[in-house]
Parts: sequence; structure tokens; C-alpha cells
Amino acid sequence: MQLKIGIIGLGRIGAIHYNNITQQIPEAEVVMAADVRHEALPPHVQVGTAEQLISHPEVEAVIICSPTDTHADYVETCARAGKHVFCEKPLDLSLVRIRQTLSVVQQHGIKLMLGFNRRFDANFMKLRSLVTEGKIGDTHLVKITSRDPEPPSLTYLRSSGGLFMDMAIHDFDMARYIMGKEVVQVYAAAATLTGGAVAEAGDIDTAVVTLTFEDGSMAVIDNSRRAVYGYDQRLEVFGSKGMALVDNNKPDNHVYYHGSGAQSSLPLHFFMDRYTTSYLTEMQAFIKAVRGECELPVGGEDGLKAALIAVAAQQSVKENRPVAVGETAV
Amino acid sequence: MQLKIGIIGLGRIGAIHYNNITQQIPEAEVVMAADVRHEALPPHVQVGTAEQLISHPEVEAVIICSPTDTHADYVETCARAGKHVFCEKPLDLSLVRIRQTLSVVQQHGIKLMLGFNRRFDANFMKLRSLVTEGKIGDTHLVKITSRDPEPPSLTYLRSSGGLFMDMAIHDFDMARYIMGKEVVQVYAAAATLTGGAVAEAGDIDTAVVTLTFEDGSMAVIDNSRRAVYGYDQRLEVFGSKGMALVDNNKPDNHVYYHGSGAQSSLPLHFFMDRYTTSYLTEMQAFIKAVRGECELPVGGEDGLKAALIAVAAQQSVKENRPVAVGETAV
Amino acid sequence: MQLKIGIIGLGRIGAIHYNNITQQIPEAEVVMAADVRHEALPPHVQVGTAEQLISHPEVEAVIICSPTDTHADYVETCARAGKHVFCEKPLDLSLVRIRQTLSVVQQHGIKLMLGFNRRFDANFMKLRSLVTEGKIGDTHLVKITSRDPEPPSLTYLRSSGGLFMDMAIHDFDMARYIMGKEVVQVYAAAATLTGGAVAEAGDIDTAVVTLTFEDGSMAVIDNSRRAVYGYDQRLEVFGSKGMALVDNNKPDNHVYYHGSGAQSSLPLHFFMDRYTTSYLTEMQAFIKAVRGECELPVGGEDGLKAALIAVAAQQSVKENRPVAVGETAV
Amino acid sequence: MQLKIGIIGLGRIGAIHYNNITQQIPEAEVVMAADVRHEALPPHVQVGTAEQLISHPEVEAVIICSPTDTHADYVETCARAGKHVFCEKPLDLSLVRIRQTLSVVQQHGIKLMLGFNRRFDANFMKLRSLVTEGKIGDTHLVKITSRDPEPPSLTYLRSSGGLFMDMAIHDFDMARYIMGKEVVQVYAAAATLTGGAVAEAGDIDTAVVTLTFEDGSMAVIDNSRRAVYGYDQRLEVFGSKGMALVDNNKPDNHVYYHGSGAQSSLPLHFFMDRYTTSYLTEMQAFIKAVRGECELPVGGEDGLKAALIAVAAQQSVKENRPVAVGETAV
Repeated sequence: MQLKIGIIGLGRIGAIHYNNITQQIPEAEVVMAADVRHEALPPHVQVGTAEQLISHPEVEAVIICSPTDTHADYVETCARAGKHVFCEKPLDLSLVRIRQTLSVVQQHGIKLMLGFNRRFDANFMKLRSLVTEGKIGDTHLVKITSRDPEPPSLTYLRSSGGLFMDMAIHDFDMARYIMGKEVVQVYAAAATLTGGAVAEAGDIDTAVVTLTFEDGSMAVIDNSRRAVYGYDQRLEVFGSKGMALVDNNKPDNHVYYHGSGAQSSLPLHFFMDRYTTSYLTEMQAFIKAVRGECELPVGGEDGLKAALIAVAAQQSVKENRPVAVGETAV
Repeated sequence: MQLKIGIIGLGRIGAIHYNNITQQIPEAEVVMAADVRHEALPPHVQVGTAEQLISHPEVEAVIICSPTDTHADYVETCARAGKHVFCEKPLDLSLVRIRQTLSVVQQHGIKLMLGFNRRFDANFMKLRSLVTEGKIGDTHLVKITSRDPEPPSLTYLRSSGGLFMDMAIHDFDMARYIMGKEVVQVYAAAATLTGGAVAEAGDIDTAVVTLTFEDGSMAVIDNSRRAVYGYDQRLEVFGSKGMALVDNNKPDNHVYYHGSGAQSSLPLHFFMDRYTTSYLTEMQAFIKAVRGECELPVGGEDGLKAALIAVAAQQSVKENRPVAVGETAV
Repeated sequence: MQLKIGIIGLGRIGAIHYNNITQQIPEAEVVMAADVRHEALPPHVQVGTAEQLISHPEVEAVIICSPTDTHADYVETCARAGKHVFCEKPLDLSLVRIRQTLSVVQQHGIKLMLGFNRRFDANFMKLRSLVTEGKIGDTHLVKITSRDPEPPSLTYLRSSGGLFMDMAIHDFDMARYIMGKEVVQVYAAAATLTGGAVAEAGDIDTAVVTLTFEDGSMAVIDNSRRAVYGYDQRLEVFGSKGMALVDNNKPDNHVYYHGSGAQSSLPLHFFMDRYTTSYLTEMQAFIKAVRGECELPVGGEDGLKAALIAVAAQQSVKENRPVAVGETAV
Repeated sequence: MQLKIGIIGLGRIGAIHYNNITQQIPEAEVVMAADVRHEALPPHVQVGTAEQLISHPEVEAVIICSPTDTHADYVETCARAGKHVFCEKPLDLSLVRIRQTLSVVQQHGIKLMLGFNRRFDANFMKLRSLVTEGKIGDTHLVKITSRDPEPPSLTYLRSSGGLFMDMAIHDFDMARYIMGKEVVQVYAAAATLTGGAVAEAGDIDTAVVTLTFEDGSMAVIDNSRRAVYGYDQRLEVFGSKGMALVDNNKPDNHVYYHGSGAQSSLPLHFFMDRYTTSYLTEMQAFIKAVRGECELPVGGEDGLKAALIAVAAQQSVKENRPVAVGETAV
């Protein structure tokens, strides 16, 4: 039997999930969608409001791709209706609200997976497997470079929650995923160096964040909202037995040597091209987990923990001091 | 209006084309299939014999993925029925038969595209575009490395037409594609070095082929039936203004440094993983061409020309001398 | 006329400088050496104490490669004798002493160059030139990876001044060199993760240091005393117009593909192999500068500034807070 | 005791050998030189004619770096005088003359080493060691790319012996060195594509040479007199257990990513920069061999065998057919 799925939100990400399920995951089927953008849907997909979708008896699992400020409400409604949920990150910008929602989720025993799609990228999974296989030995440091090709719009920036909550949160999750350890302290140095929309929004665009894990090992993340050469996503992990790193993916691997230099392609520019496969693998994992065939690979707690680091990073910049994770927990 | 397509043969390659059209090419629709393996097809796809499919009034274009010895017959039947054709290579193992078929195709004015899928690989397209943009200048040499991870079965080898007609024919086409010139002479040195099924089949497994183009420029192709490290597909083009090369694709780009060396991933092992995207791009090009939105990118003549080179290569090995292309044409 | 040089100390580094001058710098000549290890010297090189060497009328410039605790004294003696000096870093472990010495140097108007040899490495010079040519645009971040293959001996560690003063001081200088800006604040997270001699010496072996420059741009340096795969020296600079990075040098660039993976060489393991050329280029620059043919590329002030950052880093670890450079200046 | 050496010819190559011995090979000493360009020599190096040098009682070994047409004569004179010889390649352009000379050498039992310096390059030595350690398994193919940045002068070309004897002879030797097998047949396709001096000299500038070894395995070499992007020297060896390749060396390993692409350095342009270390290692090997500490790594027979292949290649182009090595031997 196929898993019956409802999707709330058919924007950029919602459309990816819809297409992946429809075209490449025969174990599941989208039976209902809630979005004004539903003209392209085939007739057998029902359309309704988010509430109708969640309460529809046929829908077994809900994928939430609507704006961030609706996530927590929808997740709670799902939980009360006994529907499993895949929710795009972040669960909410407020730690209080995240905790409330997780409490409701736990109470009703549903499965909640957060959309940390990068955990499902082939490169990063390879690094994680080198760590779990003991090839790195005791892990001493994880280094993450995470730079966007250009800042989002002013409108987006204003409701984004800021660089740490909106963008670096993926990297905070990645640091925990690769190391398999919990972060106890955060120091963030940051600046507004690119001007433009980011400056107008009062946000930062450049940051170096040092995370300290419970055992004294560290992570260092550098973020920028504007890398003119494209979307820059690299990772390195270093430990007592070795070091492993992954580079960016490129559209092709040519090198062209001419009279005045050698040229090659830039990294894939658009996050949806860069992470095409990870979105599919992520959704396959969610569907397998809901069907009871594997553990849930990223739970609601992972969302909370990444948000706690983000909040600590914000406070660290504000007060120019290292901040303990939890110190700021509400 | 979607282009209505019939597929003859649902083996490995047929299934790829079927899935690509169904899932990722909204401009076309598979309406009929001819194969005993049709259980997995949805009910709206009709099933019948190849002849029924070709003559079915709804079918506008036919994709032929059946065994090689049926290609020429089916293409001719399609031509007479006025159906456009995408046919997997080779059209036939006999030059006489290929010429007959092309003549029928020409007589009936249908569009015939040959499945030289590698022309649609992002790496090779990039090299071709560097050539057409004049970045390489006058082209002096194209170098192709083309090695399979392991030989096919004895049964397959016995009806394959031999290394040149079965395997190197892709490389002969690639040499013409990259250079945009015609080959006038072939010298092939070859040997049977891996033993096993290839030796039993009386075939060669290792070859170095030198092609001379009409203007004196050259191609060199090296083939092996057995590269223990995987499927090795590399290309380099050299000319008066520069040189460009492409490397293999890998499942991930990690490098792992440990106490006794640095390790990275092997090339993608399986041709269907290596050329996943090229199969899709190829089919998109065929459908666009049939719909009149672009020129046919690879025609029946391209199949003939590659086969002529393959035949010359066979004769070159047999007689240990350079053989003029056309000298052997029947 | 050749510049007449005296060398104090013929240990590992002293021998490098001696050989470079003798064999590859015809503009200079070693006329005197002060070390018990002088058996290998040819007869025309005079031998004496450091004091005799400095006061010898023939000696025009002195190269100081003796233990750290003698540097300041010898530099001052040279200054008073009007001899130009090339001194291995650090000038001293005490900021007070460094300032005194620089004051004496300034008073007597000699040229003092500090042995920050890495500034003369071809890779790092290339990055610096990309910055000065404006190719990077406004510089936002420099990232330095600097890891030793293994910790020094307990004896060495005990008098080393600690990881920041002994090892990271090269990286602090490099950050200033690449960016061409002054550091105003330091935050260092550090740990002792490798055990052994470092733990016994009460030192740290792993550190992530965030430097903030006067304009808000940043540097991040990660150090380790023990990288099992060799000497790891990489650098990246990122800015408004682009990003550039350099990798480690290797003894050869082979890649070996076999049935279970692809292997390549490790980074050059030994700092004297890694920096062979930089030591020569450095000495050529010193001799040119003394002969008045170019500006002094690295002065005594550069040594002070790097030491100030090192002291701030030490304090940052001790007090777990960002420390302003200068705050700790004595 | 140092080995006492005389050098005949102090041109580009002679100067390299002179400097390497003087500066970096303490086991040897240049005591005499024969060249009009001797002003730069220190007073303790005697100067004389080639004949005086060879017969000088102090000289134990002679390095011959004079023009090609003097090589055979000087080697024979050395042999008769009982002096060991290091001679730049080729021994002569005539096979008859080479054989005569080798016969004289053998008669007098001196050690004769040919200057195939590329055998001593770290990259190529690594490939050779992978072969001898069995890591490649049975070797099936060696591929050599060997392209010069620009053709030599018309004068040089006219007395060079042609592309195969002057330039590809290094590659013929390399093919034998890597594979450790003898070549039995040669097929060479060639053209004059760059015009200029090469065309005027009636020489070819572009060639693809297929060598067949005694066991059926092969080599393929591609040469060009003009690669606008620099000196291109790459090698690959393929066999039953794996494949290994080496790339060009570059002046630095930076990659610069900007808004419209990624750039890196070109290969080292000048052969003396590319092979700096190989010239030193080669001379160290010669001196060790003369002192009886190791076998002679490249003998006179190796020069003959490479020349035989070159002659066969010339004939192959002339007659457009594969030519057996030995068929053309005189």
C-alpha cells in the first residue's frame, strides 16, 4: 500500500517534494494539496485548506512547506490529528514556541521530521560514514564553509530571523550530524560587509562561528550571504586518525588550458541544483521512517538543538562573548 | 499536445527511456509498448506486438530498444508507416543493411535519431562547445579513453559484433562529434590481454585506435573491456589555441587523508549511473526535434559513419595496416 | 661586491641559510660562523663566538639562528655594532623585551628582518598578489589551516612559549600579510586532545582562533599539533569579488586507481621540505634589502604585532572571552 | 674521495650539471671544463679543449654536453682513455654510428650513461615503482602526452634529426622504462599543423605513435611542438590491477574563483623548471654508479633502443604502415 500524503504549500520546496514523490517514490502518493497554486496538479489530487488537508481521513502524513510562521501551528494540528509530519526548517523562530510544539508532538506520539536536507547529500553522508566507521578516530574539529551566492530580498530578510536562524541553522545541524556530539558553547564574530539589502534589514552578512562540543572538540563555520562565484558548500572533518573533506559540486568537470591560464567551472549556483539528490533521498527516508522501515533520521529535537545554537550565536554577536548553549534557552 | 510515443523493448535501456518520458518530459507521453515485460506498466499504456505498435494510428514516434538484429527491420517498417524513430545503436552490424535502411528512411522522409547518448553528457557537451566557440582554435587532436569495468557475458560477446562495433563505436561517434570533421583513415592496434570470456569469444579486449581526419588532424582512442577500478570515460581535445579535458564523474568528491595515504572515490561504475542525465537530455532532444523545435542532433548517417570506422578498425587489426574509411565500404 | 655575512647557530635552520647563501646566492658570502657544530665548514669560513662574530669588522650582516632566549640580546648587540640582522622568529617570548629590542634597533637604524619564511612561499605569495591586484575585492575573510604532523619533544614544548607563541605566530603573521590589515581583537577556543607530551607540558594542541581586523573583516585559524597525515598548510581568502585558495604541496601528483579506491600522495611531511624554496626566497629578499635594492619585506614590528596577537590568544583561552589586541600589551 | 669530473660544453644543460655537482653533490667535484664560455668558472677549475680534458690524468669521469654531432667521437675517445661517461642524448642521429660507439664502449668496459633525465622525475619514478611493486598488475597500456610550448628555431630544427629523434626519443625511452619491456612494432601518424619554422624545416609538429611491446601490450604517445598553454608532460599506465596517472607540475596550486569562472596556474612552461629536480637526481645516480654504489640506471643500449624506435617511427610516417623495430636497423 502506498503512503497517502498531503502537502501544505506548493512553492519552490513544496514543488520539489511533490515531484519527487510523484515521479520517483512509488511507495507514496500525494492525495491532497493545500495551496492557491494548484492549477498544475492532476485531477486525482484533491485540493483544500491546510486544516481540511490535515483532517482529511485519507491523509496519513503531511508535508509542511508553508511560510515559517505557520509551521508550529500546522505541526500541532497534525499531531492532534495523529498525522506524521515532515516540516521544513525552522519549526519556529521562537524557542518557547518550538518547545511547546515538540511537547504536543511527543504527547501524541507522531513522527516529526525536520527538513535538514543537507544531511542526505552524498558528499556529507560520506564524511559522516567515515566518522562512524572510525576512520577519523576521535574527532577534533569540523569545518564548514557555507556561503550563498547572493542575499535574499529585503522582504525575505526582514522575516527571516536573521543569518543564524535562517541560513547558519543548516550548518549548526550539520556540525552536530557530522560529529555526533552536542554543542555546549558558541562564539560568533560577525559583520555587515556587503551592504545592500542585508544592511537595510539590519542583519549581518558575514560570520565566523566557533562551536565547542561537550568533549572540548570544536566546529568552525564561516558564512557569507554573498559569494560572487556561486553557492559554496564545503566541509572538512579532522581527528586523531585522519582528515576528510568534500568540495563543491560543479555542472561539469572540464579544465580548459589556454595561453594565459587554466579555467574550470564554478560551483553549482542554485541550492536546488546543488541539493537535487538530497531532497529526494531525504523524502525517501521520511517515507521509509513513517512506514516503520527505519528510524526517523532527523527529529524535532534536532530542530530545537540547532535553534538553540542559533540563538546563542545571536547573543554572542550582540554581547561579544562566548555564550553557553542553554544559557539563553527559554 | 503531447507527442504520442510507442516503445519497442522494455529492457534496461527501454526502461530508462520509458521512465524519463513518463516522469520528466511533459511534452511526450508513452501510449503503447511492445515487450513481454509489461506487467509494471500502468493501465493507460497499451500493449501489443512491435508491428501492432508501429501501425497503431495514435503512435507518432517509435523508440526502438529491442535486440540489435531487429533494429533495421523495425526502422524500415516505421519509415514506411511514416513514424519518426529513435533507435538504439547500432542500426545493424552489416554496412549493406545499414545503407538499405537509411535509403528507406530517406525515401519516406521520417526523422531517424541514433542513440549516441554520450553526445548529451554535460562534460562532453562542454568540450564540444569550447571547440565550436573557437576556444581550442584549429583542432589537432582528440584523445578518448573508454574502458568498461568488465567484459559482458560470452553470449553477449558472441553476437556483439566485436569490440569496435559494440563498444568503440561510441568513441568513433564521439571523435566525429567533438572534432566536427570526417575520418579518412584508421589504424588499430589490438590485443587480447584479459583472457576469460573475451578470449573464448575470439574477440579483442584492448585496443589503441588512431583516426586521421580529412585535414590531417588526428584522434586516438584507447579501449579496454576490463578496468578493475570502474567505468573510465575521459576525453581531451587539443588545438592551436588551447587544450581542454574532462575527467570521470564520481559518486562523491571526498578526499580522506590518513596516516598512509590519501583516498578518494572511484569513477561511477555503471554506465547507467554515469550517463543518467545524458539519457534524459538525449530523449528531450529527440522529442524536441520530432516536434520541429530543433534540428535532429544525431541522424542515421552518423550511425553509418561510425560503423564505417568500426569496420575499418576491424580490418586494420586483421591486416596490421592503416585502412582508408570507405575502402571497406560495401 | 658580495655582502659579508656571519651566521650565529648552525642547527637545522642555520644550516639551511648557510647552504642557500653559499650555493645559490652569489650576491652574498658567509665569512664567519658561531657554533660548536662547525666541523663541516670550509676553511675560509672563520669561527668564533657570537660576540666575536658580531664585532668582526668584516661581517656586514648577521643571521641569528640560535635558541630563542638569545635572540633579543644578539639583535641588540648587532644594532649597537651597526650590523643588519636577519633573526629567526620569535624575537622573544616577552612583549616587554621585544619592545626594548625594537627600540634599540630603531635607535641605531639597522635593518632587522624576522624569519617569517612562509610569506615567501609561492602559493601564499600568489594569494597575496591576487589580493593586492584587487582580484578578491574587499577582503572579508582569510582562513588558515596550520597543522603539524606531530608535537615536538617535551623539552622543546616546555620552553616553546606555547602553541600560540611558537606555532600559530606564523599564522598570525600570515593573516596580517594576506589581508594587509591590522588585527584588533582575538578569540581563541582551544583544547588538549592528543594527550602525550603536550598534555604533560600543560599546553594545548588544538585551537580555533578568530581574529577581527580593524574594518570588521575576519580571519579564522585552526591549529593542531598532530595531523597524522602530515604537515597541513592551506589558506583561503574570500572577498567581494571572489575567493582564492591554495592546497598543500605533495612529493608527486600521482593518482592510483585500483579495485577498491583511488589513492594519492600525502602532503609533504617535513616543514623543511614544504618550505625549501621559501627559505631561499626569504634569504634572497633579506640580502637584496640590505644591499638597498628593495624594501625590507618583514620588519621587527611585524614580529611584535604577531606576538601581540599570540599573547591575546593565550589570554582569550585563559579567560574564555574575546581579547582586544593591545589590551594585554605590556 | 670526491669523484673528479670534467665537463665538455657549458651551455644550458652543461651549466645545470655543473651547478648541481658543485652545489649539491659533495661526492663529486668538477676539476676541468671545455668550453669557450668559461669566464664564470672559479679559478680552481681548469680549462682546456675536449681532448685535453679527456686525456687529463686527474679527470675520472666526463660529462658530455656539447652539440650532438660531437657525442659519438667524444664518447669513443673517453672509452679509449678509460674514462666513464655521462652523455646527453642522443648518442648520434645515425644508427650505424651509435652501434660503433657502443661497441667501442663495450670493448673498453667503461660506464656510459645516457641523459634520459625524465626517468628521474618524482612523478614518473612513482609510476614506475607502482609497476614494479605489482600494483598495476600485468601492464596493458602506457599513455604519454609530451608537448613542447613552442617549436625550436629553424636552425635547430634543421639539425635536430626531426621530431622523433629529437623530442619523442625521450618518450620512447619513457615507454620502455615504465613498462620494462621491449618494443617490437611502431605505427606513427603525423602531420604539420602549426606552420612556421617546422613547416619550413620540412618536419612534422604533431604525431600519434602506437608502440607494440613484445607481449602485445601497447604504448601510445602524442607529441606536439606547440602547446600554447605550456610544457605538457603527462603519463598514465593501465593494467590488470589498476591504473595510475600523473599530471603536470605547476608553479603554484592556487584556484581563484570569481564571478565568471575558476582559474588556476598553467603547467611549468620551461623544461628546465619542470625537470629541475630530475637533472639533479640523474647526476647523483651517475656519480653513485661510477663510484660503484649502484647499477648504472640508463645505459648506452637504452639510447640505441630509443633511437631504433625513432627511426621506425620516421619510416612509418613515410610509408604509412606499421614498421617492425629492427626492420630498419642498419
